[in-house]
Amino acid sequence: MNSFGRLFRLSIFGESHGAGIGVLIDGCPAGVPLNEEDFLADLARRKPAVQGTTSRREPDRPEILSGLYESRTTGAPLQLFFKNTDIQSADYDLFRDIPRPGHADFTSRSKFGGFSDNRGSGHFSGRMTLGLVAAGVVAKKIIRPVAIQAELVEAGGETDIERAVDRAVKEGDSVGGMILCRIDSVPVGLGEPFFDSVESLVAHLIFSIPAVVGLEFGAGFEAARMSGKDCNDLILSADGKTETNHSGGINGGISNGNPIVFRVAVKPTSSISRPQNTYNFKSGRREQLVIKGRHDACLALRVPVIIEAAAALVLADLMLLEQKIPRIFQA
Amino acid sequence: MNSFGRLFRLSIFGESHGAGIGVLIDGCPAGVPLNEEDFLADLARRKPAVQGTTSRREPDRPEILSGLYESRTTGAPLQLFFKNTDIQSADYDLFRDIPRPGHADFTSRSKFGGFSDNRGSGHFSGRMTLGLVAAGVVAKKIIRPVAIQAELVEAGGETDIERAVDRAVKEGDSVGGMILCRIDSVPVGLGEPFFDSVESLVAHLIFSIPAVVGLEFGAGFEAARMSGKDCNDLILSADGKTETNHSGGINGGISNGNPIVFRVAVKPTSSISRPQNTYNFKSGRREQLVIKGRHDACLALRVPVIIEAAAALVLADLMLLEQKIPRIFQA
Amino acid sequence: MNSFGRLFRLSIFGESHGAGIGVLIDGCPAGVPLNEEDFLADLARRKPAVQGTTSRREPDRPEILSGLYESRTTGAPLQLFFKNTDIQSADYDLFRDIPRPGHADFTSRSKFGGFSDNRGSGHFSGRMTLGLVAAGVVAKKIIRPVAIQAELVEAGGETDIERAVDRAVKEGDSVGGMILCRIDSVPVGLGEPFFDSVESLVAHLIFSIPAVVGLEFGAGFEAARMSGKDCNDLILSADGKTETNHSGGINGGISNGNPIVFRVAVKPTSSISRPQNTYNFKSGRREQLVIKGRHDACLALRVPVIIEAAAALVLADLMLLEQKIPRIFQA
Amino acid sequence: MNSFGRLFRLSIFGESHGAGIGVLIDGCPAGVPLNEEDFLADLARRKPAVQGTTSRREPDRPEILSGLYESRTTGAPLQLFFKNTDIQSADYDLFRDIPRPGHADFTSRSKFGGFSDNRGSGHFSGRMTLGLVAAGVVAKKIIRPVAIQAELVEAGGETDIERAVDRAVKEGDSVGGMILCRIDSVPVGLGEPFFDSVESLVAHLIFSIPAVVGLEFGAGFEAARMSGKDCNDLILSADGKTETNHSGGINGGISNGNPIVFRVAVKPTSSISRPQNTYNFKSGRREQLVIKGRHDACLALRVPVIIEAAAALVLADLMLLEQKIPRIFQA
Repeated sequence: MNSFGRLFRLSIFGESHGAGIGVLIDGCPAGVPLNEEDFLADLARRKPAVQGTTSRREPDRPEILSGLYESRTTGAPLQLFFKNTDIQSADYDLFRDIPRPGHADFTSRSKFGGFSDNRGSGHFSGRMTLGLVAAGVVAKKIIRPVAIQAELVEAGGETDIERAVDRAVKEGDSVGGMILCRIDSVPVGLGEPFFDSVESLVAHLIFSIPAVVGLEFGAGFEAARMSGKDCNDLILSADGKTETNHSGGINGGISNGNPIVFRVAVKPTSSISRPQNTYNFKSGRREQLVIKGRHDACLALRVPVIIEAAAALVLADLMLLEQKIPRIFQA
Repeated sequence: MNSFGRLFRLSIFGESHGAGIGVLIDGCPAGVPLNEEDFLADLARRKPAVQGTTSRREPDRPEILSGLYESRTTGAPLQLFFKNTDIQSADYDLFRDIPRPGHADFTSRSKFGGFSDNRGSGHFSGRMTLGLVAAGVVAKKIIRPVAIQAELVEAGGETDIERAVDRAVKEGDSVGGMILCRIDSVPVGLGEPFFDSVESLVAHLIFSIPAVVGLEFGAGFEAARMSGKDCNDLILSADGKTETNHSGGINGGISNGNPIVFRVAVKPTSSISRPQNTYNFKSGRREQLVIKGRHDACLALRVPVIIEAAAALVLADLMLLEQKIPRIFQA
Repeated sequence: MNSFGRLFRLSIFGESHGAGIGVLIDGCPAGVPLNEEDFLADLARRKPAVQGTTSRREPDRPEILSGLYESRTTGAPLQLFFKNTDIQSADYDLFRDIPRPGHADFTSRSKFGGFSDNRGSGHFSGRMTLGLVAAGVVAKKIIRPVAIQAELVEAGGETDIERAVDRAVKEGDSVGGMILCRIDSVPVGLGEPFFDSVESLVAHLIFSIPAVVGLEFGAGFEAARMSGKDCNDLILSADGKTETNHSGGINGGISNGNPIVFRVAVKPTSSISRPQNTYNFKSGRREQLVIKGRHDACLALRVPVIIEAAAALVLADLMLLEQKIPRIFQA
Repeated sequence: MNSFGRLFRLSIFGESHGAGIGVLIDGCPAGVPLNEEDFLADLARRKPAVQGTTSRREPDRPEILSGLYESRTTGAPLQLFFKNTDIQSADYDLFRDIPRPGHADFTSRSKFGGFSDNRGSGHFSGRMTLGLVAAGVVAKKIIRPVAIQAELVEAGGETDIERAVDRAVKEGDSVGGMILCRIDSVPVGLGEPFFDSVESLVAHLIFSIPAVVGLEFGAGFEAARMSGKDCNDLILSADGKTETNHSGGINGGISNGNPIVFRVAVKPTSSISRPQNTYNFKSGRREQLVIKGRHDACLALRVPVIIEAAAALVLADLMLLEQKIPRIFQA
């Protein structure tokens, strides 16, 4: 459903072309210094600011509606809200009857009996990730000195990412991408197997991000092709440091103190300007669809900061559970 | 922690060399016909029966300790228990101080302050998956006609799997493998995004299986290298059938009626008979470790049925939630 | 924490003197007709409108910020928000150091390290129940024809409630009250024992309402003094109808088709205008406190509609679980 | 459903006349000293040992099937199992068609479509509380020095409890009772309002105990008749100590450091030997039923230790959440 986490819990809500998008964070420790400026850097990374991303322009400045008093979290639920302003809904009316290939138009229509708010993809919009990024900012604060960094390392199969995106833009097409995430200074002992292994929780959250289609930890798919002697990471010292890091910093679902490393595959944006065939539910016939609207040629460009947020949220939850984060931050 | 699921909930417990292994299933509908024989086929697939798997031999016959009356589920919790019989714990004493590379020896020792039951890897043993497979048998019954099939399609990078395993056995080494899972007859509309997308729930459970290091849906990592026009699946008819299935049967986190397809990467067994370097926590020095015990040269051989169980468990939960499974099965 | 429910889940947030109060509802079926007017009748019953309730005046008109499209729920989370307008915070500064007897001033200060928003009791204000009442309106719609009615049957030990309240007002004092709640047309079979019996879930929610200090089902405390032959309800017919209803419509934690009946004890408002002794944390001395502010002489007057909401929310969750409410409401 | 708790989680299973009764505890810290003897004192208090309780005799010695190694908890799930031995099921066959007044026979039959195991009331037997008591023993260990004491203070409306029970036995009848529970040495700050107030969690668990029909904290129902000036507890010192304890040690849902005090109403045993009228579902007619079997004349005699367990379980969960209990107990 729309909540995640055991102790550091977030709930998201909103629609792309409704009143706004928001996130509710429950279980945040009291006393964490916080203000609206803290969100701007990460929100800017999620924004469409470069070639190859949508031309929609939103200020994306959070209103902190609860849980903050005199610039400190109070221990009560934090509610962050982003008003929608730059809305062009006419673009989307069409897709009620003629679902876009690769989109949630058909599935959301079926699941919710035609009652979903389809404008701008509604609750299925990539814009929902605003809430994740905002919550991630809070999480990053409380997990310090744990540090997370994600970057796009490949687009459309190329490492020259700019070139791949340019080509897609020119062709009215789109490209997918590959994101590498690395987490440093992770304490040993995070993770609650059997079911809440570090990988399980990270995967749960990562696969809720629209367009994510693959995830691997450490050597990942390459490990499936390796032998044990090459894949095993030899332990070097009492702190668990290993010679290699094929396991991606996790053994038995629990962090081993080495960097946590994982890679995420993002599919190409489904909305492309080239004509595509689809099925018209009104006429009952196949027909050609041209999607106008405003879209990312490579939405993977905007995903790294969302991946970081997801990782931070999982770690905040696990660190609270393992009592590595206090319930009250001192002034 | 050790439970998973919202309506069809399972909790696992046990240790490799303790009294036994078990699973508790809560939320199973009443009236489902069930007996001990029903479990044998899937349990046999999980058993080490071929070249390249451990020589430990357990009957693996479930005792149904609660929730069943006159061969029908009662609606009360189902408790399945597997007694351990073929135990050789002396093999494992060593690893308390000298953690095996690639294993949970170091992380479980750190997390639980040295109190974990280390015998046979205790609660971190691959044997814990017995409970998953057993619960999967029940889940498969109630999700019919949905049908799940997983198979090992590659080991050590080769499609001639037998050859890859033979070589590993000869060299005292091990190999990883790749599993393909396909689910047919899936109703449209399963999945509870934002956070409980089909992919998220499947990923959560799959990544709790020991040795799983990668997961991709549909075109997966290949999609990250594709363009939108090649990746989008064109809708052909009112039932949502698509021309291709690059999305793996899921859009916006919700099943679209096409087969759900995903691939799982399994790393090579960590326990190999070749000597490996590691750190001795007692002596405070690095030293060479030779693992005796009994181990799989390719544990991926036994994983397909576990993957099927994981998929069935997720679908049972989602189908109950979507009211596609009744609370009472009629006689 | 601040969420409740398995399938019909609500999360509340906000502070008495912050930006506002709200509730997030996840799991509401799609297609339920809803608009702002629907909330007004119940919200009016919660409002301070009569002798003996606070003089604070808020419009309490909900903004529906998400989950609604063309006057129907969409299946996505419903976010309801109530802006605070009539705020007089100066009244409350005092209580940071000099906690009011019977209030959460001391406990919230201790738990959250002094970081809570103390204005108007912040997140501990009775005003938080706005969210409950609003969510209850939605729940009442979907559980139809189940009908819930709660009323104040006693205040300060008298059945002439007006007289009891008048006297309290005159004396600068306050009085508690007793509420009777009755639920009709309940289907047989609701409740998920062992732990989620109807009584357990109702009790969980009822005891989260500020000032509730007692709860009894059916004959309740009187039953503790009865004999089995007098207390047992004799079954009259195949639909489970019983001669008496000492069990309050529940057996073994499951609804039996007779009216569910329970009584709730509400303590007197803690804030009274008479001087009271307390401890001054700044001076380290006991001293006399006079609470000015605006307060209810009998907050129990406003509680019946909150009790109804709590009951409706539990029933909505249980009826969804028992598949007595569809996931999609037809137009 | 059959699980309870956020961090210290228990799941119960079993039937009165099946293989046995058990409890699974997840989230217990590692290193807690534990052995089978530890359970005997509390289990003996739950046993039918005196006049007025059933004549069924079970050894009630727990088997610890997992989670314990060398007499210390390991951090993995603890599984406790009690085999059933003294079973006389023939007694119960009757009630499938002729439900006993005041029992779950009718509701469980309806909810589970006639598939429940009705022998000895199956999963609805008071015997299910064995698991609660056993889990309570573990909880009591980890919450020390918090100390819980419950006692029966009234039976059938009399304080001479023995006399009340004797009379009931003689008359083939049964009586209810009142239990007082007091918890000392509670740290300030436990409780997670809004929804997980101390009262809410205690109430949730207490109302899952069969036959509990009422619960009040502190002055409880009497408070509903009091005025604010008489009910408010005046704070005396910096540790929160109050002059009176009408609030029962809780303000705003959070423990205030004074003893937590609550009272529980238990209804009379439903099974009595006197003939009672009920409905025969087979014949479709009302008829007289005589219950033979073995039953408590006053089951409230056995309930105090169950109430203590419930309180201990809630406190263990809240204290872990508030980081007042470590994740590892040192040797």
